[in-house]
Amino acid sequence: MSVYTPVTESELSAWLQNYSVGRLLSLEPIKSGIENTNYFVTTAQGRYVLTLFERLPAAELPFYLELMAHLARHGIPCPAPIADVEDRYVRELNGKPAAVVTRLPGKSLERPGTAECGELGLLLARMHLAGRSYAGYLENPRGPKWWRMAARDVSPFLDSQKKKLLEEEIQYQANHRFPDLPRGPVHADLFRDNALFDEGRLSGVFDFYFAGVDCLLYDLAVCANDWCFAGADDPRLDEPKTRALLEAYESVRPLQAIERDAWQPMLRAAALRFWLSRLHDLHLPRPGMLVHAHDPEHFRRILESRIAGRAPWLTP
Amino acid sequence: MSVYTPVTESELSAWLQNYSVGRLLSLEPIKSGIENTNYFVTTAQGRYVLTLFERLPAAELPFYLELMAHLARHGIPCPAPIADVEDRYVRELNGKPAAVVTRLPGKSLERPGTAECGELGLLLARMHLAGRSYAGYLENPRGPKWWRMAARDVSPFLDSQKKKLLEEEIQYQANHRFPDLPRGPVHADLFRDNALFDEGRLSGVFDFYFAGVDCLLYDLAVCANDWCFAGADDPRLDEPKTRALLEAYESVRPLQAIERDAWQPMLRAAALRFWLSRLHDLHLPRPGMLVHAHDPEHFRRILESRIAGRAPWLTP
Repeated sequence: MSVYTPVTESELSAWLQNYSVGRLLSLEPIKSGIENTNYFVTTAQGRYVLTLFERLPAAELPFYLELMAHLARHGIPCPAPIADVEDRYVRELNGKPAAVVTRLPGKSLERPGTAECGELGLLLARMHLAGRSYAGYLENPRGPKWWRMAARDVSPFLDSQKKKLLEEEIQYQANHRFPDLPRGPVHADLFRDNALFDEGRLSGVFDFYFAGVDCLLYDLAVCANDWCFAGADDPRLDEPKTRALLEAYESVRPLQAIERDAWQPMLRAAALRFWLSRLHDLHLPRPGMLVHAHDPEHFRRILESRIAGRAPWLTP
Repeated sequence: MSVYTPVTESELSAWLQNYSVGRLLSLEPIKSGIENTNYFVTTAQGRYVLTLFERLPAAELPFYLELMAHLARHGIPCPAPIADVEDRYVRELNGKPAAVVTRLPGKSLERPGTAECGELGLLLARMHLAGRSYAGYLENPRGPKWWRMAARDVSPFLDSQKKKLLEEEIQYQANHRFPDLPRGPVHADLFRDNALFDEGRLSGVFDFYFAGVDCLLYDLAVCANDWCFAGADDPRLDEPKTRALLEAYESVRPLQAIERDAWQPMLRAAALRFWLSRLHDLHLPRPGMLVHAHDPEHFRRILESRIAGRAPWLTP
């Protein structure tokens, strides 16, 4: 469970005097998530999530929170940060920077079908269009610079075959950069457990704390790798799901020719990034980390599968 | 019914391409309201209200829409304007400036009880505190300057007794100004039909198009005159309802001594303002106005009652 910094009802009640959300009714720790401390908070006004930021640099918080506020006011169903009486989204609580955001309805799906992949494609494209007018800038914190640093850190723990795969992929990616692809704010971590469905509708996307500015296509690749793989033991992309994702996306934002050409390398980049972060969490856990690391092997298999096979694409 | 500017489904579908709210599902004219053209709009994303501004000066629209956006992101349940792809809240539709805002759940109550008056008091106080950090400025467009102008316009239609009441009250108000009262953005028109209740909870307040900067106490007086009068034929304030409104308000924002002293004149000012606007709508209807004017007599009786009787107050 991921409560690094406990908060009592009386501490929170006092703190919420600085907000216009009404009287605190209840407070419940959220057990998932590994980065921050999160609580479900219910007040006389509504349902919220309280996040205490445990390790994000304070200077980066405005990028994430202003992005969520920007997307929310464009109609994207993402958590909307609540401003305090001093009109700020971040306020210290028990020694940590903290924020209150709206809580969205719905539940995550472990096995989304083609219809849900289509819903995701529509929302992702709308999010990308809405993000175009966002003025904030933060380089994707898990981009190529971080890959190289993380690879150096985890290499000592890898056997020679995996070390070779890692080195060759980083080299391949360095040879396949796409500076001309459309860029903008991307979620960059829109896994199934960061999306909520309510009566078949995609009712929310959340956890923007890996967001940054990068190729829009990268977001699609992250989603395809997590939402559209064929089965627990089959890392290949499922063609109907992938087509549903891409066709829906293109119905809102048609892809450019250079984006089509970049699809295969982008799927590999997205697999590399999560293989690396899982290796890092496994071999170099942060002190006090309360959650078991995900198995990195899942993303190694996805990476190898993306290297081996042509991804389904709209035009064969 | 108040559709001055018709909008077809295909016109709206095309226009909504400039927003990130998903595909249009339905469009339904709203029959109430007299100032603007309003439609309920449902998209794949959610439920909204579309407003075409028929006569508000374009320069004032940002004050209202930014105020709603400000309050919404402070947790106040008011309509949140949706920004378009160019990050603006106002966009022309069929020749009129138009805006899309979120639609709130709930229904208006014709006869709120003491509990509902308490809910209103809490929300009004939270709204006033949240409004403190709002930077926009617009003088209350229905303040003393407007009273004098409107009185001049409607006087020819009044008998000598009413003319005397009107002149004396405007003089009384001129002699009872309160420049030191706490000021800020006020809704200034928070009648029962501009509030929604859902399962006993005040789920929304809307129609901010008479908002402006004025004494916060004025908002309370407008509410008391509409929410707390004793009965259809009895314009006096109902003491339990008025106490519920004020006590709840004070539990969030305690009133200052100078506000207590101003309560009686403020109730009269709030009654005067609506008597005047109803007289104006009755005797000088705007060309093309589609809704019958409310009876001005209701507010004349309220004004006379406020002049005659001491209002219930927390400290007798």
